[in-house]
Amino acid sequence: MRFTCTQPHIALAVSMVSRAMAVRSTLPMLEGIHIRAEGQEVYFKCMNMSMQIETRIDASVFEEGVVVLPGRLLSELLRRLPPEEMEVSVDEGNAATICCKSSRTTLQGLGADEFPQMPSEQGEDSMVLAQKTLRDMIKKTVFATASDETKPVLTGALLEVEDGAMTMVALDGYRLALRMEQTDPASPEQKAVIPAKSLNEIAKILQDEGKVRFSTFPGHARFEVGDSCVVTRLLEGEFIKYGQIIPKEHATRAHVKCADLTSSIERASLLAREGQNNLVKLSVSEEGIAITSRSEVGNAFERVDCDFEGKELEIAFNAAYLLDVLRVIEDESIVLDFNSSVSPCVAHPPEGEAYTYLILPVRIY
Amino acid sequence: MRFTCTQPHIALAVSMVSRAMAVRSTLPMLEGIHIRAEGQEVYFKCMNMSMQIETRIDASVFEEGVVVLPGRLLSELLRRLPPEEMEVSVDEGNAATICCKSSRTTLQGLGADEFPQMPSEQGEDSMVLAQKTLRDMIKKTVFATASDETKPVLTGALLEVEDGAMTMVALDGYRLALRMEQTDPASPEQKAVIPAKSLNEIAKILQDEGKVRFSTFPGHARFEVGDSCVVTRLLEGEFIKYGQIIPKEHATRAHVKCADLTSSIERASLLAREGQNNLVKLSVSEEGIAITSRSEVGNAFERVDCDFEGKELEIAFNAAYLLDVLRVIEDESIVLDFNSSVSPCVAHPPEGEAYTYLILPVRIY
Repeated sequence: MRFTCTQPHIALAVSMVSRAMAVRSTLPMLEGIHIRAEGQEVYFKCMNMSMQIETRIDASVFEEGVVVLPGRLLSELLRRLPPEEMEVSVDEGNAATICCKSSRTTLQGLGADEFPQMPSEQGEDSMVLAQKTLRDMIKKTVFATASDETKPVLTGALLEVEDGAMTMVALDGYRLALRMEQTDPASPEQKAVIPAKSLNEIAKILQDEGKVRFSTFPGHARFEVGDSCVVTRLLEGEFIKYGQIIPKEHATRAHVKCADLTSSIERASLLAREGQNNLVKLSVSEEGIAITSRSEVGNAFERVDCDFEGKELEIAFNAAYLLDVLRVIEDESIVLDFNSSVSPCVAHPPEGEAYTYLILPVRIY
Repeated sequence: MRFTCTQPHIALAVSMVSRAMAVRSTLPMLEGIHIRAEGQEVYFKCMNMSMQIETRIDASVFEEGVVVLPGRLLSELLRRLPPEEMEVSVDEGNAATICCKSSRTTLQGLGADEFPQMPSEQGEDSMVLAQKTLRDMIKKTVFATASDETKPVLTGALLEVEDGAMTMVALDGYRLALRMEQTDPASPEQKAVIPAKSLNEIAKILQDEGKVRFSTFPGHARFEVGDSCVVTRLLEGEFIKYGQIIPKEHATRAHVKCADLTSSIERASLLAREGQNNLVKLSVSEEGIAITSRSEVGNAFERVDCDFEGKELEIAFNAAYLLDVLRVIEDESIVLDFNSSVSPCVAHPPEGEAYTYLILPVRIY
């Protein structure tokens, strides 16, 4: 195998695929980058237990071939080479020599025969959406996935396309995050539970501009972004029927500025964190939302103005769950709906249904 | 105690002194910030085992007093308050209430009687220099202090004022870093070995503009920067007579561009790091400096142009020691002097004596 290309192109491609590179894998080959030169293109691929990323660059290929090179080393080397024309040549023993100006490095690679492969056909029912939209759906929900593995299906988010709406939902038993976007009513139905790990990497690839093509096929989902393609395994098992657990009614409603509420809860949580359970108490009334917390070291009292409707209420939350929601919201204000001090709080935008958050309260005696 | 001030002032003062706040101290009081309101000023102070930082702000003091407040909590709280007027009041039980707009936090403090204190008189023989100069002297030498404690005096840098020159020197048995600056010939003689930990914190306080006043008194050195004052303990013991170990002659000289040498050694060290001792070999000749490294995974060859004088030479180094030096040099080029493959390399600027670095080679067979 032998090809020439420019350093910025190959460095970008390798940095893209190495997001899926395995770390300390039981299969050492997965700590490598699979490289294939064919036609006038070079293809790069990495995979780990949950996902695979492939991309390609244009190159002058003088000899076709395929090899697996040590991933971390190759990627650190390419990043440090000057932005010049460079040559990669691989001998019959899989040793690759990388030349760029007066730098020449030889890396011992492996034959590519045993490199595993995820099925990567495009699903039949693909749909196209803005990269920015998908990234926002991930960012606004993925934090609510479960981090413990007792119910594996909850370590991922459900991506659902149905009746002209695309919905992403994550929940962990204490809170739920839902982000909804209108879509072409002709879009094919989809239902896939995607591991949080994969979603986090996909979000990093997605840009402000451009489109992404999404499709599913048995056990997998596929995202095509420009010249790159991400295939992720799906989580098996039935996702909780989330529609039933979101209360439709409310007895108390507070319309509040996000920035004010965030900074007040952040300050109150400094003391709450010192206590056992990061607990902040909210008293919602005509006079606004009063937030209190206490621990051995002291106590905090904060008041935030709000537009209030309904009956007064006292309720307590784990401050981290409130802050997780407030930190991803970009709207100026948010509406909080309550029913009682032992039923969940529902947060949603003042207008529209772009997102819905549900947070279970902590019982206080 | 009761005073009012503005959030930006108090937050800055607390963040300044908390650089010297002890972490997990056996004396819990040292995890606190000592606050004293007197006249129309409030004084803040923290200390740990090696240094003390004090500063002051203007304030409207309604009741004088002194207290020690939990350091980390106070500093996180102040950072999160809005940039408004605020009030601090402390009751007889040392509980401090901090009010700012609609936020009110109470922190339980301690009486200040048992807060330890470093002697903080100004030494008689003080001298003044530019903050930027002192920061540069620290930055260019402190990395060469010893990190193990077998010879405690080597965990600090020697600051010496003599015959119109101010010199900072650090060495750890494998390399030496020396930074020299002309000073007023009338400057009083000084000789102090300052712990690296203190120097690193002092460097963070120093700005591009303004002056710093430096003085020593038995066992301590004092740095005054604006309204702040840092007192650090000195290390005891005789510092090595470094003048004797810097070779005055050279058999080989290479004048080389720093950026080229740095990036070549960085690339070569990727493979060297995989080996046992991070070893890079330099061959210095008319043709430039050839840099090679090898490990089980592969090998690297780099060539860097240089102006060459003297006899050809092969020599090997720990790549990290070369890179530590190259990363702090801001000059475009540097001169490397060698005598043999088993004697140290001396690096210095093409003109002047602002810095001298000495690096011991690794013997290769």
